[in-house]
Amino acid sequence: MSKPTIPSGTRDFGPAVMQKRLFIFGKIRSVFERFGFLPLETPAMENLSVLTGKYGDEGDQLLFKVLNSGDFLKEADAEALQSYKKALPKIAEKGLRYDLTVPFARYTAMNRGQLTFPFKRYQIQPVWRSDRPQKGRYREFYQCDADVIGTDSLLCETEMLVMIREVMQALGIPQFKIKLNNRKVLTGLSEIIGQAGREAELCVAIDKLDKIGWEKVREELEARGFEAKGLDLLYQVLEFKSENPIADIAILEKQFTHSPIALEGLGEIRKTLEYLNAMQGDLNHIDLDVRLARGLSYYTGCIVEVKALGVSIGSISGGGRYDNLTGVFGIPGLSGAGISFGVDRIYDVMEELNLFPDQAQQGTRILLCHFDEENFSYCLPLAHFLRQNGIQTEIYPETGKIKKQLSYADARQIPFAGIVGSEEMESQTLTLKNLINGEQQRVSKEALLALLQN
Amino acid sequence: MSKPTIPSGTRDFGPAVMQKRLFIFGKIRSVFERFGFLPLETPAMENLSVLTGKYGDEGDQLLFKVLNSGDFLKEADAEALQSYKKALPKIAEKGLRYDLTVPFARYTAMNRGQLTFPFKRYQIQPVWRSDRPQKGRYREFYQCDADVIGTDSLLCETEMLVMIREVMQALGIPQFKIKLNNRKVLTGLSEIIGQAGREAELCVAIDKLDKIGWEKVREELEARGFEAKGLDLLYQVLEFKSENPIADIAILEKQFTHSPIALEGLGEIRKTLEYLNAMQGDLNHIDLDVRLARGLSYYTGCIVEVKALGVSIGSISGGGRYDNLTGVFGIPGLSGAGISFGVDRIYDVMEELNLFPDQAQQGTRILLCHFDEENFSYCLPLAHFLRQNGIQTEIYPETGKIKKQLSYADARQIPFAGIVGSEEMESQTLTLKNLINGEQQRVSKEALLALLQN
Repeated sequence: MSKPTIPSGTRDFGPAVMQKRLFIFGKIRSVFERFGFLPLETPAMENLSVLTGKYGDEGDQLLFKVLNSGDFLKEADAEALQSYKKALPKIAEKGLRYDLTVPFARYTAMNRGQLTFPFKRYQIQPVWRSDRPQKGRYREFYQCDADVIGTDSLLCETEMLVMIREVMQALGIPQFKIKLNNRKVLTGLSEIIGQAGREAELCVAIDKLDKIGWEKVREELEARGFEAKGLDLLYQVLEFKSENPIADIAILEKQFTHSPIALEGLGEIRKTLEYLNAMQGDLNHIDLDVRLARGLSYYTGCIVEVKALGVSIGSISGGGRYDNLTGVFGIPGLSGAGISFGVDRIYDVMEELNLFPDQAQQGTRILLCHFDEENFSYCLPLAHFLRQNGIQTEIYPETGKIKKQLSYADARQIPFAGIVGSEEMESQTLTLKNLINGEQQRVSKEALLALLQN
Repeated sequence: MSKPTIPSGTRDFGPAVMQKRLFIFGKIRSVFERFGFLPLETPAMENLSVLTGKYGDEGDQLLFKVLNSGDFLKEADAEALQSYKKALPKIAEKGLRYDLTVPFARYTAMNRGQLTFPFKRYQIQPVWRSDRPQKGRYREFYQCDADVIGTDSLLCETEMLVMIREVMQALGIPQFKIKLNNRKVLTGLSEIIGQAGREAELCVAIDKLDKIGWEKVREELEARGFEAKGLDLLYQVLEFKSENPIADIAILEKQFTHSPIALEGLGEIRKTLEYLNAMQGDLNHIDLDVRLARGLSYYTGCIVEVKALGVSIGSISGGGRYDNLTGVFGIPGLSGAGISFGVDRIYDVMEELNLFPDQAQQGTRILLCHFDEENFSYCLPLAHFLRQNGIQTEIYPETGKIKKQLSYADARQIPFAGIVGSEEMESQTLTLKNLINGEQQRVSKEALLALLQN
């Protein structure tokens, strides 16, 4: 073969991109750890019995399935091979993980006896979905999740909100909005418009508001048999724009007086905001938004979503409270809350707004250059000395034309070259050339170190 | 389902293990970067056309194959479904990567025009092999590789040897041995025993020396038609134990006077050792070993392997020079050299010798405890203050019994508890309890910070 390719929807991350991605991972990891979350990693492959049925029919179809090893047809007779649905359970027992939440629930259930609850873990790993690839949608992408399980304290929701702000600050994203709502408010909403129990349909429709506008959403709900009177009321509630989150809860409470579940949800939001205000001293960035629905069916309490302002890129983080994630694995009644950061979108935001600091793009600091084998040998202990003192150092591996060596430094964006010829060897120095402004000076190795450490 | 499991040969890494693994990854990454290697990540899935045929027949069988999405049987007619070998190319086009070397070669070939050569990259990612699981052998494990491609300078070999030592030092593994040999010496060996061209068979046999001993190896080679006279000479060479690597090269050169290729290999070793001695000032840990063969067929020059002393755990690192890794992807003539660290074995060595420092096991520093809702609220800004100053802090999420809160701290190995009651609130302090020695004192928040920063 002569022209290799990679599978569609997957990506190589070369050095320049990787350095920036590692910057993002590092900042998120450090915030998670400051809040007491500890790292967990689970296998890329899970048994299909663990994955299937957790993400809806569509999700099941998007799972990547791994063929059984050896003679995978052994278990499949001619009849099973009539259709891929019949054949699948015979020839593939494993799949690639679709998200980090189900593996976390599976891990919690499997290790229940050894874990200390509340159990706080973070997890930064890739996930795989066989979605049709398109701009911004990949078949392999990283998720960065932090979850607490085993407590229904609203401290979890509060700390999620603080962590979002601290991640944004650590990354240097100054303008962002944290939308906050509660699933119980949406349940209440379906009640007060006379459609109790149809919350799921309602959420799907509300989710489209930003894209298609109220008129179309209304048409859709009418077609589904939602009554006009209820839809008028729905419009009134959805139209509500919050200015001051805590004060506005009182306004919403009046609209939901007849829905105990919505009042419970609003009460949770209020208390979370009170904690948040006590913890960080303000409620900046918080946007109470009754239109926030979030697709995932397992949320049962507060839900949040984060958008960067000034760019048209979807949400960069989201999360919420779930009451029964481990139930399907035989451990009911463990409430938890979690948040997830989308590294690809954060990367796009930072790239578009030019927010990556130099520190996120720094590699080798100095390239040692030489004219001949003797000069080269002089560079060997010098490189060792610099590295021992923490300076990222390279020696150009081949002797010869300095021009070629400097153009390597240039292409690699190395800021300094240390040039060694016979004069430098005699005086036990080298010529330090600043490749950004062209200045050069003769320095001793100690002076060199001092200069590079600045 | 009620009892979930994970696929055999795969592992969950819980927090305590993950912290230690991250310590290892961090140290290796930092050494790689100090030598000017930059990060690369490639997709977990590669096209099977890229992977197949690169690892021998056995390797091909150990590849995990991923089913095509959707109706994977569409391309496979009844005849193809007669045998799994015929069916495979119809129903699976992708596989999980088997190592990091082939993806690196594929990346280099695909991006040749954009890369600056010599191209130095490191890569820390999991790989998958459907080997039969057994103690110490897993179906998913991480590799940590650093490679330079595009130069045949022996500086690459030299820096590999220095990096090994620096990784060992950074991890705190004091006792280790770096075995060094050259494939050309092994080629020469097959020549001087009159079996030119049978180097591969010879390497396989030599590889077994440690396990089954010389007598059995000799029998095996005799059965394969190696002549007795040659085998006597072979024994003589293999028996050679090096005491002083540079000086001993001269001894070996005498044995190989009739093999130009072996003399070339010995010359490469000599020069590498001279560079190494110039760079780091000594040749400690280096063990010239003509018995070192290393299985991988793509090596063509120097080869190295690292063993920790005082434990019976296999090699923890290895690597070498290869002259034509990208040839199969249409880019011949790019010479390179690389090294790989095995995290699982390094972990086992460090665990067995109790080498993990406290720093590798540190999580939350302080748990804030409280008797009632008012105390809890007092803790909120205090936690924020500590976190803003870099202290990993948790608040116990539920009010109530202090004993329960302290036993959570204990189980999580959190060294300090900060207890808040009404007296503490009145005096704007808290009671700091050292959970290791039981001492406690009343402190202001500033004094608390100073204590925790020590």
